[in-house]
Amino acid sequence: MKINCLLVTKVLTNFIREESHKAGFEQNIIGLSGGLDSTVCSYLAVKAVGPQNLFALIMPFKDYDQEGVRLAEEVCKILGINFEKIDISPQIEAYFSSHLTDNPVLRGNKMARERMSILYDYSARMKAMILGTSNKTELLIGYGTIHGDLACGINPMGDLYKTQVGQLARYLGVPEKILKRKPTAGLWPGQTDEDEIGLSYEELDKILFRLVDERMTLEEAIKTDLEEKKVRQVAELIRKSEYKRKMPPVAKLSERTVGHDFLYPYDWGK
Amino acid sequence: MKINCLLVTKVLTNFIREESHKAGFEQNIIGLSGGLDSTVCSYLAVKAVGPQNLFALIMPFKDYDQEGVRLAEEVCKILGINFEKIDISPQIEAYFSSHLTDNPVLRGNKMARERMSILYDYSARMKAMILGTSNKTELLIGYGTIHGDLACGINPMGDLYKTQVGQLARYLGVPEKILKRKPTAGLWPGQTDEDEIGLSYEELDKILFRLVDERMTLEEAIKTDLEEKKVRQVAELIRKSEYKRKMPPVAKLSERTVGHDFLYPYDWGK
Repeated sequence: MKINCLLVTKVLTNFIREESHKAGFEQNIIGLSGGLDSTVCSYLAVKAVGPQNLFALIMPFKDYDQEGVRLAEEVCKILGINFEKIDISPQIEAYFSSHLTDNPVLRGNKMARERMSILYDYSARMKAMILGTSNKTELLIGYGTIHGDLACGINPMGDLYKTQVGQLARYLGVPEKILKRKPTAGLWPGQTDEDEIGLSYEELDKILFRLVDERMTLEEAIKTDLEEKKVRQVAELIRKSEYKRKMPPVAKLSERTVGHDFLYPYDWGK
Repeated sequence: MKINCLLVTKVLTNFIREESHKAGFEQNIIGLSGGLDSTVCSYLAVKAVGPQNLFALIMPFKDYDQEGVRLAEEVCKILGINFEKIDISPQIEAYFSSHLTDNPVLRGNKMARERMSILYDYSARMKAMILGTSNKTELLIGYGTIHGDLACGINPMGDLYKTQVGQLARYLGVPEKILKRKPTAGLWPGQTDEDEIGLSYEELDKILFRLVDERMTLEEAIKTDLEEKKVRQVAELIRKSEYKRKMPPVAKLSERTVGHDFLYPYDWGK
């Protein structure tokens, strides 16, 4: 689980620069929350394309995460990048005023999708590549909103576990206050990921690494020092979130179907 | 290009029933516009799961498409399905009042994503599978909003060209008024797809069929009765919209990366 931060930084900055240029973009855009992932991704992007080619959107809902907003602004100042702050409350309240719910997950998903929608609007206006900030832990257990924070143009850190993002953050010199914050999806004030999932990222990543990277079966993983109940819980999270990691299935009728046999138009027709 | 409507109906109704059940859903939900695709998909879904297991959302923006709304309501009445009508104007105006633009594509994309966001909210509340209504023509040329109308749980008609959806519509007995309507994405009042794309669906599907299904090279296709300029235009549309047909690229760092080597968790861990 220990990463070579020098090498990882080199690979990821190249990835951002090349994928963004390949798609025809000069500019890049990111949603900043003041949390670890979006901060680390901004640090990488500035190394990759320079501060003049990264733009940040900070999109709070009411005063749910004032500390996050302050930290996000601090990151912009440190990195020397331009940013805009957009309060998403009017759109969110316009919907929930006629669709009452006190379910924080419903409300959080709507917020995540509104932020996505604004990022894509800015992306089109500014001709900027949207940098995703999901990490491997989130992608594997599906801890994110489909067509919300999981949506992006490219995903630089999708192959780094949360604890590895932490290693990279120290290496890149991310402010201590951000390193020390409890990770939160910002679903409600005071929410933390680890409370909601019921596992620490330390435990979660260890289990995921055994199951996914080391290709252990559940039985093999349980025979190590891991707790059976937790291993089964994580395996179930992976299974249940599969739909978030792939395109929707298309019913196959013809000889060549989108998503089945028509996958790689890069090489096509040349 | 001629389809066996009896067989296609059988395949697609099985697909809807099986994929929906496999994912653990009893209910299904669809966004209805009064256009051909969402109407045909509703007809198929009612055949597949019965009217009691399909719910429709009609989501107009202001009075942009009053005829569409009337036709969508008529479809619900014919099929005997429950529906709700939600005006998306408050959320859309809340955003654009501080982000002025007269670019109809920007406005249309925001609307499509708001509709997606509401469909997903209802899907979570009702525990209902979201039926996508994109056809093969739209998917191949990217005529749709990513994380908007292209977003869904399953996509029954993604392997039918627009003109084939028309054949199926006649077979299923869709109202003549809907069959006769000029296809429109509803971006602005009076907008039609064919004007915007600059090709009729007849021409478009013929070119796509040659290039994709018959695997002709551009040179081969141009040697048939097709116009060179149009063939090149369509090929370019396919190429430029690739990102809408796949998951965002993840930078590869480990032995097993989401989207690269970790693709099929169905079979995983058993």
